[in-house]
Amino acid sequence: MLLADIGNTHFHIYDGKKVEHLPYAEAIGKYRGKSLQYISVNRDIEKQIGCIEGWKNVSDFMYIPGEYDTMGVDRKALCLSHDNGVFVDAGSAITVDVMERGIYKGGYIFPGIKAMLESYRRISPALEVPLDEHIDLTRLPLTTKGQISYGIIASIKALIEKHKDKKRLYFTGGDGKLLAGFFRDAIYDETLVFKGMMHTLQISEQ
Amino acid sequence: MLLADIGNTHFHIYDGKKVEHLPYAEAIGKYRGKSLQYISVNRDIEKQIGCIEGWKNVSDFMYIPGEYDTMGVDRKALCLSHDNGVFVDAGSAITVDVMERGIYKGGYIFPGIKAMLESYRRISPALEVPLDEHIDLTRLPLTTKGQISYGIIASIKALIEKHKDKKRLYFTGGDGKLLAGFFRDAIYDETLVFKGMMHTLQISEQ
Repeated sequence: MLLADIGNTHFHIYDGKKVEHLPYAEAIGKYRGKSLQYISVNRDIEKQIGCIEGWKNVSDFMYIPGEYDTMGVDRKALCLSHDNGVFVDAGSAITVDVMERGIYKGGYIFPGIKAMLESYRRISPALEVPLDEHIDLTRLPLTTKGQISYGIIASIKALIEKHKDKKRLYFTGGDGKLLAGFFRDAIYDETLVFKGMMHTLQISEQ
Repeated sequence: MLLADIGNTHFHIYDGKKVEHLPYAEAIGKYRGKSLQYISVNRDIEKQIGCIEGWKNVSDFMYIPGEYDTMGVDRKALCLSHDNGVFVDAGSAITVDVMERGIYKGGYIFPGIKAMLESYRRISPALEVPLDEHIDLTRLPLTTKGQISYGIIASIKALIEKHKDKKRLYFTGGDGKLLAGFFRDAIYDETLVFKGMMHTLQISEQ
């Protein structure tokens, strides 16, 4: 069984054990001829891969009660991984979605960490700093690097905690592990989108 | 009495009654020959205006116990306006600073609202939306525009409220009025930086 989540720049491919991140051409070259089910947020890619034998677009199966019109299919698959929880996908953007008893309750979107840092840099060269990945959130910082890192991480954390109630917190995406580290009992799992796909397509985990 | 806060693009000039926002050249043309005290975050401007008769750079007087090395002089002046409070300057960047009994306790920095919206747009055309200035923060949104507006406003609000305790909340800057509207009992005052200057320079309000 091969599952693919096609994003705006890469294929993310799951073979039931590990996730592989490949540029479009490489993914197509490597997996052409194999049986593969995919979801895609990139409509243009359909022209290139829609006719590949054995590849099936299963995006339309990703339905959640409560979903909204323009909700990305990768977010829907992520939310379909569990009936209850707060789901954070920390990539180029950071999406936060709340699920209760299998129903989508809404969410919100932040720019991704890289986009945020770029945004500070564009405002002023004085604000061009790397993220302090170990920022102490228990005290107000007293350096530019600290105050920017705190602005990014502590604001995301404060808002997520506000809606958490007793729900489990699930993180995925490139910065998911980093962000999860700032929460107690958060679960980081890079296969969540694929778990949502498997659950929906009723593929049993091997 | 004329006071000026020289930013990265404009002069902000206060005559004791109202604040005027002028491009550099216009401000210099209009107020050359008048007596004026200024603070400036723009080091280069000093070459142009340092020799103007009657104009005095008072940046070095803006000192707060607890301040840090690279703290902007406009932020210091803002904090000097009151001994206690949370001070938000919502401009090209949004700075949040906490003062207790005349001592600076630290703060943090967000990108400004315009920079945030630009940041979403750069991530994907699908995320190019205007801010919903009347976003309802009491429920999770179900549209892209709502989820982005919520991401921006609710995260700033959640973090500010976390540090507020019983302090007063003061807002200034171009988006200060908009942001203040999302808080109970927040004070919006576009003259706060000048009040800090007057307080420090012991100029009495007329």
